[in-house]
Amino acid sequence: MSKPLISALAQFAAATAGRNMTKAAYVAVIVGVLSMVLLTDNRAREARGWVDALLWTCLAYFVFEWLVRLRHMARSGRLALYMSSSAGIVDAIGALAVPAALLLGVEPKTAWLLSVLWVLKVVPGIPGLRQLRRVLVLESGPLVSVLVIFLMVVFLASVAEYFLERDVQPQTFGSVPHALWWAVVTLTTTGYGDVVPVTPLGRVVAALVMISGLGVFGLWTGILATGFAAETRRDNFLKTWESVSKVPFFATLGPAAIADVTHMLRTIELPARTTIIRKGAQGDCMYFIAAGEVEVDLPGKKVQLGEGAFFGEMALLGNNKRGANVSTTKVSRLLVLDLVDFRVLMARHPDLAETIDAEAKRRALENK
Amino acid sequence: MSKPLISALAQFAAATAGRNMTKAAYVAVIVGVLSMVLLTDNRAREARGWVDALLWTCLAYFVFEWLVRLRHMARSGRLALYMSSSAGIVDAIGALAVPAALLLGVEPKTAWLLSVLWVLKVVPGIPGLRQLRRVLVLESGPLVSVLVIFLMVVFLASVAEYFLERDVQPQTFGSVPHALWWAVVTLTTTGYGDVVPVTPLGRVVAALVMISGLGVFGLWTGILATGFAAETRRDNFLKTWESVSKVPFFATLGPAAIADVTHMLRTIELPARTTIIRKGAQGDCMYFIAAGEVEVDLPGKKVQLGEGAFFGEMALLGNNKRGANVSTTKVSRLLVLDLVDFRVLMARHPDLAETIDAEAKRRALENK
Amino acid sequence: MSKPLISALAQFAAATAGRNMTKAAYVAVIVGVLSMVLLTDNRAREARGWVDALLWTCLAYFVFEWLVRLRHMARSGRLALYMSSSAGIVDAIGALAVPAALLLGVEPKTAWLLSVLWVLKVVPGIPGLRQLRRVLVLESGPLVSVLVIFLMVVFLASVAEYFLERDVQPQTFGSVPHALWWAVVTLTTTGYGDVVPVTPLGRVVAALVMISGLGVFGLWTGILATGFAAETRRDNFLKTWESVSKVPFFATLGPAAIADVTHMLRTIELPARTTIIRKGAQGDCMYFIAAGEVEVDLPGKKVQLGEGAFFGEMALLGNNKRGANVSTTKVSRLLVLDLVDFRVLMARHPDLAETIDAEAKRRALENK
Amino acid sequence: MSKPLISALAQFAAATAGRNMTKAAYVAVIVGVLSMVLLTDNRAREARGWVDALLWTCLAYFVFEWLVRLRHMARSGRLALYMSSSAGIVDAIGALAVPAALLLGVEPKTAWLLSVLWVLKVVPGIPGLRQLRRVLVLESGPLVSVLVIFLMVVFLASVAEYFLERDVQPQTFGSVPHALWWAVVTLTTTGYGDVVPVTPLGRVVAALVMISGLGVFGLWTGILATGFAAETRRDNFLKTWESVSKVPFFATLGPAAIADVTHMLRTIELPARTTIIRKGAQGDCMYFIAAGEVEVDLPGKKVQLGEGAFFGEMALLGNNKRGANVSTTKVSRLLVLDLVDFRVLMARHPDLAETIDAEAKRRALENK
Repeated sequence: MSKPLISALAQFAAATAGRNMTKAAYVAVIVGVLSMVLLTDNRAREARGWVDALLWTCLAYFVFEWLVRLRHMARSGRLALYMSSSAGIVDAIGALAVPAALLLGVEPKTAWLLSVLWVLKVVPGIPGLRQLRRVLVLESGPLVSVLVIFLMVVFLASVAEYFLERDVQPQTFGSVPHALWWAVVTLTTTGYGDVVPVTPLGRVVAALVMISGLGVFGLWTGILATGFAAETRRDNFLKTWESVSKVPFFATLGPAAIADVTHMLRTIELPARTTIIRKGAQGDCMYFIAAGEVEVDLPGKKVQLGEGAFFGEMALLGNNKRGANVSTTKVSRLLVLDLVDFRVLMARHPDLAETIDAEAKRRALENK
Repeated sequence: MSKPLISALAQFAAATAGRNMTKAAYVAVIVGVLSMVLLTDNRAREARGWVDALLWTCLAYFVFEWLVRLRHMARSGRLALYMSSSAGIVDAIGALAVPAALLLGVEPKTAWLLSVLWVLKVVPGIPGLRQLRRVLVLESGPLVSVLVIFLMVVFLASVAEYFLERDVQPQTFGSVPHALWWAVVTLTTTGYGDVVPVTPLGRVVAALVMISGLGVFGLWTGILATGFAAETRRDNFLKTWESVSKVPFFATLGPAAIADVTHMLRTIELPARTTIIRKGAQGDCMYFIAAGEVEVDLPGKKVQLGEGAFFGEMALLGNNKRGANVSTTKVSRLLVLDLVDFRVLMARHPDLAETIDAEAKRRALENK
Repeated sequence: MSKPLISALAQFAAATAGRNMTKAAYVAVIVGVLSMVLLTDNRAREARGWVDALLWTCLAYFVFEWLVRLRHMARSGRLALYMSSSAGIVDAIGALAVPAALLLGVEPKTAWLLSVLWVLKVVPGIPGLRQLRRVLVLESGPLVSVLVIFLMVVFLASVAEYFLERDVQPQTFGSVPHALWWAVVTLTTTGYGDVVPVTPLGRVVAALVMISGLGVFGLWTGILATGFAAETRRDNFLKTWESVSKVPFFATLGPAAIADVTHMLRTIELPARTTIIRKGAQGDCMYFIAAGEVEVDLPGKKVQLGEGAFFGEMALLGNNKRGANVSTTKVSRLLVLDLVDFRVLMARHPDLAETIDAEAKRRALENK
Repeated sequence: MSKPLISALAQFAAATAGRNMTKAAYVAVIVGVLSMVLLTDNRAREARGWVDALLWTCLAYFVFEWLVRLRHMARSGRLALYMSSSAGIVDAIGALAVPAALLLGVEPKTAWLLSVLWVLKVVPGIPGLRQLRRVLVLESGPLVSVLVIFLMVVFLASVAEYFLERDVQPQTFGSVPHALWWAVVTLTTTGYGDVVPVTPLGRVVAALVMISGLGVFGLWTGILATGFAAETRRDNFLKTWESVSKVPFFATLGPAAIADVTHMLRTIELPARTTIIRKGAQGDCMYFIAAGEVEVDLPGKKVQLGEGAFFGEMALLGNNKRGANVSTTKVSRLLVLDLVDFRVLMARHPDLAETIDAEAKRRALENK
């Protein structure tokens, strides 16, 4: 191959090796899965050639990605770790499943179905998945109980229904497995309507099952909601914690105060050139800069504020019309302090409030 | 046109120009959309003439409204801003969509369908929409994860189902797109029943999908519930905050106390001549007047209370039968303090409690 | 009529007049409605005579009840108030609806259908209905927004679906009203399956509608959950508040402490001769007697404890096996203090904890 | 029988007698119920012999279990108590239901259906069931109201629907019972589609019912979520409470502090040889050992930590990369303190924080 191409590939490989999901990977997953879907659709028969091409390309990419990673890991001596990690397994499946099936002489149209497993590659990229998993783990106890109750109701109901309906509709309620199918469809309130009780008693049982369905739903959601509330609080604290310690402004505070403050702040990540405050808008929070830089667009001059600085405090000191446009100049992480929390903070740590007050006054004079 | 008519129109235009939704606009939306609905219904064929008339009237109104606003904005030099704002775009669509379609020679019955877009005009008028949007934004992270998980389940399940059912029911599971349709219908627990697995294994997969459906539901709701709780607290604080500062009674308090109090108060807006307290009723809260005026209907005389005054405090000082009727004389904004919070307040800010106590005693004597 | 019968009736009337729902009324509602249901069922044709008899009896009872109340209210000069109250209107409907229909020559079977309105009489008797209503009122803002959004989605989706499906299935999607029906059935995830899109695009729109359905669900529930949490806290405080003040034991506390304590206690109402504590059971809470009396079944002797006394405190002082059976001797209202809250209480109000401690020691000695 | 067999049986009996669910019991329940399910399935006809054998074996086991327990209880003089307890009744049913049916000459295939009752044996083994029950009890008030409202809507809607649809579809809406079936299916949003209104008015009523369905759902869930949040907090406190008192480290604290700490800790039970901390991982919590022992795998040497010791504190003192692998050596109960709570604790109880700090420093030096 020509030199430039090789170097380009090398570069691409390097990019691929490290990160978990490159843009290319996302594209490949989406294109690949959609082509697989088209492949099975007869209306797309004439486009068959293109679809095949796309599928092979995606497959090639994933094989390439996998090999690059294997090499990368082998070099950094983490090969075993990688291959036993979920990511490693998913990569391997993504690269080998389809070829393996084709080699084993599975009919192509069927073999390509395995390419749906590529969606698994997206998992590590899902935002806040860790959070969801934690909730499920912490609440697993009650969730399992609900599941067990769910199954008990399903079994009891289906046997009862089978007993009541088998003679009237031997086709649909001819055996307990059939009745089980009905029970699940009903208890989840899906209600296909392919299997429906017709005897009065059978319908009474069904009604009870449906109402229990609501109950199961309710418990399930209640549990998750509770777990989620706790997790959110915790997660937000962790996110904010590091940032706070980076803001010199808070350094003066004791650990107690910092813990307090951290609970009150909310972290937001912003790309460059994003408007944070629009002049004249209603303001109900102030911002601290944990990382990055913002530009305050004052009449006549533009002021840059860097890490550790704060702005938008006017809104919290009586005047709640924003006085100037503020926007980021580079990627920035900001800590948001809502009015509601500012008042509480003010109460608990007057010194902090005074600092803000003083600074605000100073700026007001300056901008006179 | 005759003078009076013109002036009336001018007046009407003025009213229209400013506010976002006039009563007329609401009427036009409802009438317009309903007529459009009727238009497609054959049973209403004989009323066709009337329906057309109504549709044209509504359209005329929206065109008029749009022109008036354009003129108004142009005059106040906010034309560009308005035309790029969502409200401006909605107005434009409302005024131009249908005529454009008709001019392009689209069959009238079809062209008029576009008048359904008029419902978008209601959006800015929806109460608490801002709040909903904020919740969705703040919780977007987890919500997106749930959505991604939802899609992954849909794809994996539909391919599995297609593989298991395609031979048995080529009509309904003949391709993955068909199976996808089934998966969405099932995972949302909608369950039309037009596509239903019949093979034992297919039904097992379906059962798992339905149960995941409950899970998705639960997570989704849990996330929103959490976000909503936080948002409500915040929103209520902001609403109350301004009012509190307007009540001289609280002015004596330090910022800490004010923050406290604000958390405890609930703001309610009342029209004129509304009864707030009915004599003899069970009382469990007291009221502060942030704006407006109320009238206490004491035996013999009527007492007016204006901004900053409070009433209903007896209920919180042991005697919880209301002693007199109280009703607003003009539109008023009241701050409600529940018994539960009053006790806490009493504990944290004895001075405040004493003031209330003293005032209560004074009144008791007075009304002897 | 014979004297005793009259006096009995008078007595019965007296009972009826005052209370909102007598046992008799409940029976009448249930019997009446069920008979009405039977009346329409052909399988119950032979029992027709009995059913009619029952219906007439119930009707007679409700008429009687209504007249008695009218008389009662007239005497106590609250006639107008009663007749304009919801209870009064419901009573009137219950008594007059069916006869009116019969007099107007409506076919009996149809006229009797009106007796379903009798169920409305149950409303005032529903426990915690007040609480539910309050939640709905306080959260009405966001709930209405969700409803409006719901309707907007319904209209937009149904027009889109009508446009996409009308040519393929003129029967089911022949007009927007038909499509509206489909949209509601889908967005509520009910999914009858009588109207189902078949075109690819139509199904994509439908999928979006279903997912929005989950969203609507989630928001709705989230809002109600939030409102409910707040309301429960408030409601419980009010219930407990009165009781606490009645327990001399807490009288020594200042208002601050009382507010604290009230937040921690839970009120429970118990009938006579109910076992509260079973010897040897795991104990994690103590009880204060707000009203009534309990009997502690100690080895050898039985000790009565009356209003203001407490028991079960051992569980909170290290030893969490219950030492004796405790049961109510008369209808009692108890305040429950959980271990979790006891520790906090102990921390905030040592004096209180000491009193309990001392009393516990005294008893321990005594029962040696 | 041969001696060893007898002794083995005796041993097995002993094991069975005491515990509520032995592994054997779980197996028997699952095997038994599944065989019963198979029994009704014609596809499994040829395996009939095996299925029967399995069923009889399970039955034999349950009879054996029941007798053993009866004997055990009789000996410890708790026979009456056991037989009246729910567990006792379930055991009796499990042992007697099927034989009784067979003796009464019920056709075997039907008689064996009763073996589904064996699933009830699982109930006491469900984790966190107590917790669920408590929530249902505490929230019973509102839950019942929702249920009553549910029933009222069902009755009113079904009568209305019956009145509107009976002439058009006498088959499906021929009587109120039929309409009731429709109402339940609709209000629970199950929507089989076997009974569907077709008249315009009928569909409007149905739409309202569906929307109320969402409401019922929402309320139901909201109530349960609220109850659950309260219960979780309480339950966790109780679980942790005992452990805390067992950790000498906390003994120095006053009751107030202990209550505080207990609220912050989370208990986790771990089997032996489980890795708790993986070197290099992100750390956001520290651990206290309430029971058991862990091994810290330091470079060069392995350090054992026993009851009362703590580890992982580095993560909370700035450095949040884990420094070493830590795993349990025996079954252990650990108390987890999250970073978020550690900061608060540090603030409220500086002394405690110092102890941890000091210990951390000591270790750091040691491991130099």
